[in-house]
Amino acid sequence: FETSPQSIRLYRLYNHQVMEAVTYFFILVDLALALFEDPAVYLLPVWATCAVELVCLLIFTIRLVHFAKVTPRNKFWKDMKNICVILTLLLTLFDIILYWTLIATGYYIIRWSRVMRPLFVVNFTESRQIRRAFRNIRNTLPEVANVFFLFMFSMVMFSLMGLKIFSKRHFETAEGTSYFNNYLDVFFDLYVLVTAANSPDVMMPAYNASGWYAIFFIVYIIINTYVFMSIFLAVVYNNYKKHLTNEVMKLVLLKRCKMIEAFKLLSVKKGTEFVVKEAQWTQLVKLVAPDISNSHRELLLKVSQEEQEKYIGKDSFIRLADLLNIKVITMKTRIHPIETWMPKLYNSYVSQAIQKMVKHRWFVYVFDIIIVINAIFIGLDDENSMISNAEWIFLSLYILEILLKLYVYEPKTFFARNQFWNWFDTWIIIAALLATTINAVLKSSGGYTSQQVLDFVLILRVLRLVRIVDSFQRFRVIMNTVINIGPTMLVFAGLIVVVYYVFAIIGMELFKGKIKFLGTNSTDPAADFCGNPKLINSAFAMSKYCKNNFNDIVSSFIILLELTVVNQWHACLLLANGFVAVTHPSARIFFCIFHIVVVILIINIFIAFILEAFLVEYSLHKTEVETAIEKNIQEL
Amino acid sequence: FETSPQSIRLYRLYNHQVMEAVTYFFILVDLALALFEDPAVYLLPVWATCAVELVCLLIFTIRLVHFAKVTPRNKFWKDMKNICVILTLLLTLFDIILYWTLIATGYYIIRWSRVMRPLFVVNFTESRQIRRAFRNIRNTLPEVANVFFLFMFSMVMFSLMGLKIFSKRHFETAEGTSYFNNYLDVFFDLYVLVTAANSPDVMMPAYNASGWYAIFFIVYIIINTYVFMSIFLAVVYNNYKKHLTNEVMKLVLLKRCKMIEAFKLLSVKKGTEFVVKEAQWTQLVKLVAPDISNSHRELLLKVSQEEQEKYIGKDSFIRLADLLNIKVITMKTRIHPIETWMPKLYNSYVSQAIQKMVKHRWFVYVFDIIIVINAIFIGLDDENSMISNAEWIFLSLYILEILLKLYVYEPKTFFARNQFWNWFDTWIIIAALLATTINAVLKSSGGYTSQQVLDFVLILRVLRLVRIVDSFQRFRVIMNTVINIGPTMLVFAGLIVVVYYVFAIIGMELFKGKIKFLGTNSTDPAADFCGNPKLINSAFAMSKYCKNNFNDIVSSFIILLELTVVNQWHACLLLANGFVAVTHPSARIFFCIFHIVVVILIINIFIAFILEAFLVEYSLHKTEVETAIEKNIQEL
Repeated sequence: FETSPQSIRLYRLYNHQVMEAVTYFFILVDLALALFEDPAVYLLPVWATCAVELVCLLIFTIRLVHFAKVTPRNKFWKDMKNICVILTLLLTLFDIILYWTLIATGYYIIRWSRVMRPLFVVNFTESRQIRRAFRNIRNTLPEVANVFFLFMFSMVMFSLMGLKIFSKRHFETAEGTSYFNNYLDVFFDLYVLVTAANSPDVMMPAYNASGWYAIFFIVYIIINTYVFMSIFLAVVYNNYKKHLTNEVMKLVLLKRCKMIEAFKLLSVKKGTEFVVKEAQWTQLVKLVAPDISNSHRELLLKVSQEEQEKYIGKDSFIRLADLLNIKVITMKTRIHPIETWMPKLYNSYVSQAIQKMVKHRWFVYVFDIIIVINAIFIGLDDENSMISNAEWIFLSLYILEILLKLYVYEPKTFFARNQFWNWFDTWIIIAALLATTINAVLKSSGGYTSQQVLDFVLILRVLRLVRIVDSFQRFRVIMNTVINIGPTMLVFAGLIVVVYYVFAIIGMELFKGKIKFLGTNSTDPAADFCGNPKLINSAFAMSKYCKNNFNDIVSSFIILLELTVVNQWHACLLLANGFVAVTHPSARIFFCIFHIVVVILIINIFIAFILEAFLVEYSLHKTEVETAIEKNIQEL
Repeated sequence: FETSPQSIRLYRLYNHQVMEAVTYFFILVDLALALFEDPAVYLLPVWATCAVELVCLLIFTIRLVHFAKVTPRNKFWKDMKNICVILTLLLTLFDIILYWTLIATGYYIIRWSRVMRPLFVVNFTESRQIRRAFRNIRNTLPEVANVFFLFMFSMVMFSLMGLKIFSKRHFETAEGTSYFNNYLDVFFDLYVLVTAANSPDVMMPAYNASGWYAIFFIVYIIINTYVFMSIFLAVVYNNYKKHLTNEVMKLVLLKRCKMIEAFKLLSVKKGTEFVVKEAQWTQLVKLVAPDISNSHRELLLKVSQEEQEKYIGKDSFIRLADLLNIKVITMKTRIHPIETWMPKLYNSYVSQAIQKMVKHRWFVYVFDIIIVINAIFIGLDDENSMISNAEWIFLSLYILEILLKLYVYEPKTFFARNQFWNWFDTWIIIAALLATTINAVLKSSGGYTSQQVLDFVLILRVLRLVRIVDSFQRFRVIMNTVINIGPTMLVFAGLIVVVYYVFAIIGMELFKGKIKFLGTNSTDPAADFCGNPKLINSAFAMSKYCKNNFNDIVSSFIILLELTVVNQWHACLLLANGFVAVTHPSARIFFCIFHIVVVILIINIFIAFILEAFLVEYSLHKTEVETAIEKNIQEL
């Protein structure tokens, strides 16, 4: 890194929040283009989307050049992610030019570079977390592939046995078709049995003939459904844990190296040791963490100075980064603002009584009971005007509760960052108040009631009930864990979006317009077979699945989610068969690849991730640094 | 513990292998009685089964009295498992007497004590492992119950929202029935959606009306199917791990206490320390581990003596139990017996060449290729006589391989305990040789070929192919892990048997004879509706599920396994509905309880168990003791 004032200014500009927000915004715009390109939710002319895309590419290029300016040259070119971004930029540009050239000469070509858009999400410096998740998956792959081969081997063996044992016995299925007499069919039937979707149907013909044949299927289910699927999870979990540890170790090492470098720059020699002067240290802390309070900084200083005054040693200096990450909770009981303004009123007898009442545990119980009564009222028929009026009473009770609490507890403490439930409560109540008022105004003005507003009010009402969970200690632990791992779960959501996006774009190119949804009350006879004669009398059309199509990006995401929830293979096959019917049998490959990538890999990693996050949250080990601080604080 | 010679003799008798084997045998007999009691696989008269059961009870009583003799009185009565056994014994006796009294007076009563038989499996001292597994489940329950309550709460909330949002819109399902208009139906539909069995059918009517409704189902699936199910696993895994650690710690503590007691009895004072003399130590080791070799014992002695000769200190003495558990592998290359008998022949030029050839890695490759060719032959039509004759060639090739290996490697090393694959190979080949010969003899003698023998030969042939896995290093690691956790998995099998047995007995009493299977080719018209008019035209009978019944213990076990593989809820409901149709709607409770106990609890514990076992096997930490020994061995 260069330390000239200009490059520092450039670096600071690069890391400025506004710049990062702009990058995120344009990545989002780039991804959202799929909404407006054919097959589109709202079709825009091609020149418009291309223009927007070019703007995005320009922004990305500027961002990349900026990054190149603040990074040493050899480091920049060694980093795969930069090369990846450059390649994606060039290929996208090439694609756009090619597209317009061919259009000009009268040809049509698909915009193949759209598949590469998620690469921007993954490869920009900002999305470190998603990149880490992908790296984790890549590292897990070889081990999972080994288990997958073994699993396939076991499948092949069992299919062979099944074919040899059952084919010559000429059993018949319940539908009267022949049973287990073709190797590929046997293999496929047994693969579906792993997901347990065709149990016990696949076993019944043989079981009806003799009870001994059941042994074959029982052994198969134990080995392939239970043992192998658990081993998949175990391998994924084991690798996930291992690579997570490696990543963390690497990060810690990197941080330490950087801190040592910083120490070398700032330190002066004192006696035999190198130390950093207190003034410089204070200046540094003020620079890197401008929003911490003076008392907090002084505390950090006290903790960092070991025995010698006015100087900070190497070890303490290196620990600074960790120290800054620790949230210091100000335990000082703040004085309520009303008390400062009107001390007499606030400390009056009535006021004191109110404060005592609100702090009493019966206050919580009473509101729990009110919530339960509220739940019963919601469950009752809301056409009744008395019950819909009762809603106003509940709403005012909840508002009263929040106002009382705000009167008793200091507002800043009440709305502290870690007070999730207070925030939750307040937002829900404010939203409910607004929505109910809007609804009432609409109703009284024109007798018109929007069902959408009513639904929104209802969801808010039901969400309000969730608060009761917080009253039970035992549930609170679990809920807090879930809330704490929430942000990390968003990383996972990003990962899923990236994978879905790629499959959605490919799916749209393959299947767009093949299956049409003509509305529920359409009188068009084509509505009965999804607008494609090949689907006449098919199970797909009969189950009214027409809306499950790849005709725009939103529908594509929903159908991919349905394919992810794959346990019900019959439905899944039904979906796949619909698309195979309107295109070509090889379309099955698309669905198979999606199944293997998402169900075997991504979902297991998701489970591994929740498992690990939950275990870590549950056991909440104190870090070494934290204990060191505790010791120092006690010494003060 | 008493140390008189008589009580020691009693104690030794109690722990004698024969005594334990007898107890196991009679527990097995007691459980197997269900095969012969009404509803039976082979019906025996009631007096016969009762007589056998009385014999079993007598044996158990003797065993218990014997245990009481060798245990201090207050300890015996404090132990829950003894009281449990006594109660079970008394209740069973009472049940038998009651049964016969009532029979004598002309009444009929069910033998309700049969449900309690698995308690013997759990509560006898011998089945420590299964008891530990049960204790583990019991300890996990409270935490799981908390998550379960939260899960139910979330279900209730979503059902309420679903009902309120969708009921007034009057959508219709694909079958034309009304949709989401009854709270219990909504709740049930959404519960089934957790198992993903009715996705996307349950969502289609709303989704067809508007894409926005999909959000409700997507949020539901993410929260309940993915997050909650993962949390169930995380909580079970976390508790499993925690309690496992506790159990191990307790065991280690107990062992240590006992070793200290033993040391106090044997030690003599020498200087300031208490020590055990070498002679006494040797006598002790000879007594507790009579089958270890002299050289092994001397090695242990050398390891135990620290600096002082002829005496063993307290720490080393306590470590003895751990030392005895370590398997010492004799690395000494034994001389091949043929070499000792005929050294000239064995070391001749031809013999040397053979040895070199067998040890060459191409020897392995050649046999891998033979296995692959064999696999192709098995896949081909075996009616062809040339191909069935080829089987003899393969068989002789495999025999040749084993004989060659035995010629080159020392037999005792080749058949060492840890040489799983050699044992596997040899047994498969011997069995295949026998079966193929029997088959050939049968064929030539009367032209008669038993299809069962042929099937058996086929399975052996296919199993032989499994050996190829061992040739790949990457698969070997996984396979070895599976083989190593195999024995522990048997504990789990015991646990499953206990749970299934209880449900099977209850199921048999509830549903016996209600659904009959009359054979596949039965001309009886009743065969079409499983012999119960209530099932005419039911989906249960149409799917030919008649053999899925509770008419004997074997059928019960199979139907319970089908219910365990529960993903396909439709099939499961179909099964349950069949039984509900022939009895009473409340029969559903039986199936629901089974689902919660087995699928949510037992299966998750199974996954947790595999996860933990796999992780431990994978990381194979060396214990402290082992490293201490290594150090001592290096010093020698």
